[in-house]
Amino acid sequence: MHPLPTATPALTRRELARLLTRIENRQATSELSALYPFTGQAHVIGVTGAPGSGKSSLVNALTLYYRQQQRTVAILAVDPSSPFTGGAILGDRIRMRDLSGDPGVFIRSMATRGTLGGLAATTADAIRALDAAGFDLVIVETVGAGQSEVDIARMAHTTLVVEAPGMGDDVQAIKAGILEIADILVVNKADRPGADNTVRALQAMLELGHPAGWLPPILQTVATESRGIAVIADHIEAHRFYLRQSGALISRERAQLEAELFTRLRETLLNQLLTRLEAGALSAILDQLTMRHIDPDTAVQRLIDNT
Amino acid sequence: MHPLPTATPALTRRELARLLTRIENRQATSELSALYPFTGQAHVIGVTGAPGSGKSSLVNALTLYYRQQQRTVAILAVDPSSPFTGGAILGDRIRMRDLSGDPGVFIRSMATRGTLGGLAATTADAIRALDAAGFDLVIVETVGAGQSEVDIARMAHTTLVVEAPGMGDDVQAIKAGILEIADILVVNKADRPGADNTVRALQAMLELGHPAGWLPPILQTVATESRGIAVIADHIEAHRFYLRQSGALISRERAQLEAELFTRLRETLLNQLLTRLEAGALSAILDQLTMRHIDPDTAVQRLIDNT
Repeated sequence: MHPLPTATPALTRRELARLLTRIENRQATSELSALYPFTGQAHVIGVTGAPGSGKSSLVNALTLYYRQQQRTVAILAVDPSSPFTGGAILGDRIRMRDLSGDPGVFIRSMATRGTLGGLAATTADAIRALDAAGFDLVIVETVGAGQSEVDIARMAHTTLVVEAPGMGDDVQAIKAGILEIADILVVNKADRPGADNTVRALQAMLELGHPAGWLPPILQTVATESRGIAVIADHIEAHRFYLRQSGALISRERAQLEAELFTRLRETLLNQLLTRLEAGALSAILDQLTMRHIDPDTAVQRLIDNT
Repeated sequence: MHPLPTATPALTRRELARLLTRIENRQATSELSALYPFTGQAHVIGVTGAPGSGKSSLVNALTLYYRQQQRTVAILAVDPSSPFTGGAILGDRIRMRDLSGDPGVFIRSMATRGTLGGLAATTADAIRALDAAGFDLVIVETVGAGQSEVDIARMAHTTLVVEAPGMGDDVQAIKAGILEIADILVVNKADRPGADNTVRALQAMLELGHPAGWLPPILQTVATESRGIAVIADHIEAHRFYLRQSGALISRERAQLEAELFTRLRETLLNQLLTRLEAGALSAILDQLTMRHIDPDTAVQRLIDNT
């Protein structure tokens, strides 16, 4: 009902919510084309980390801080662990309490529909819609650890990886991969025992090697008490400045657009081929595969040759 | 050096290890075609769950149990959280102690190379190689929670989801998605406080709904002491029997082959298109996209029309 704060293509909150639903259902192709020229303005912040690290509280506190600075914030909570249930419940309760009713904040949860490739494409489109709607900051929060984080981090300008003290013995294995997508490392729940150990462990891993150019700072927060949040915001701003100065902003965006283009091409080409196939051709090939009469490579060749 | 126990295409351990390396590097196309007729014999067990649940210890104990039954076991440890470092360190130390030197056991770690689609394809091919090499059981272990687990679970005949007591407040959100891929639910570290609560929570979630046909049992283990392992093995056998009796084995395999065929078709079609493109065409399209002169859908159309 409230018009959105600085929307270039004027959208009410309700219109934006409906657009995001159509994006989830992959029914917004022409609207996304129309919005595309208005994108590229928002700073996109990715927030990821293991379950229990307090990501949602951190996003909440960071949003409140940005609102005090009169900056508008859209939060996109993406839950790749929930492919079937369709319900993304990522920290929604904690947010509603502090942020609801503020017209400068927009919150949306998205669960996986179909494949991971689908989630990544949907998330990219949703970020664009929120960007074009005029939000200064778009915060994308994901749960868990895995390839989905990495894919979604590639869409963010600045990625925060959140850890907490004493998260169990397998954590080292996760950090190894996730560390390399981090622009800022956050040790949340820093008032708990073991926070210094977590900082030292991260420090040691950073010293083993990180991508050249930007050295990720390791920052401590107690998000539930809003402690350390201003420092996080300052480092996000510094990273944004670094991206612009170094030219990394343009090269990152180009790499991401190329990856997205390839994903869309794959889908389009497969759909074209399946449409051209004779009725029953796919089923016949699958029969032969199941009976081990042909192998998968031969099956691919036959399907391509048949059309 | 030792010939593998019941290998149909006779492979030594060293030959199998080299084949798996070529599979990881996507250089084993013709060998995989040759192996394909010998696949479909092994029972493939997926083991997944949150970090800290003790998956590796459970796989270790289960393997020792199967060895006592004179059954051969291949373990594939897949680490989707480590896309850059290339080092899969999933519980390798604990395994080496108890299982090394046994010619009836083969252990291999795989990390992500490239995209998740790549990991899923590589894992499918690696399972086939181990299956064709004659192992009775192939155990695929993955870390974390997310779409990668779901993709890999689809390749398993029987999927174990491992939980442990008191894993933090976000765990509920993970379980919601991961529960629906579980054929057997394991509460490991069942000697710890809170195990009964975890069992009750899982029970409550199962009652909310699970796929029809097979009701996943909730079993308790202390894997480090090999407690509860024989019961797990019995339920895996019961699930295998259920899959054969109900026809689900064939329908699952067919669905997985179809998904794999589509993945391969997407890759092949994209590569064919990129090969046919004029030099500079892709770069020119990316320039226009970056400058917001065209939108992604238009870019896809132009690339397809150009070839």
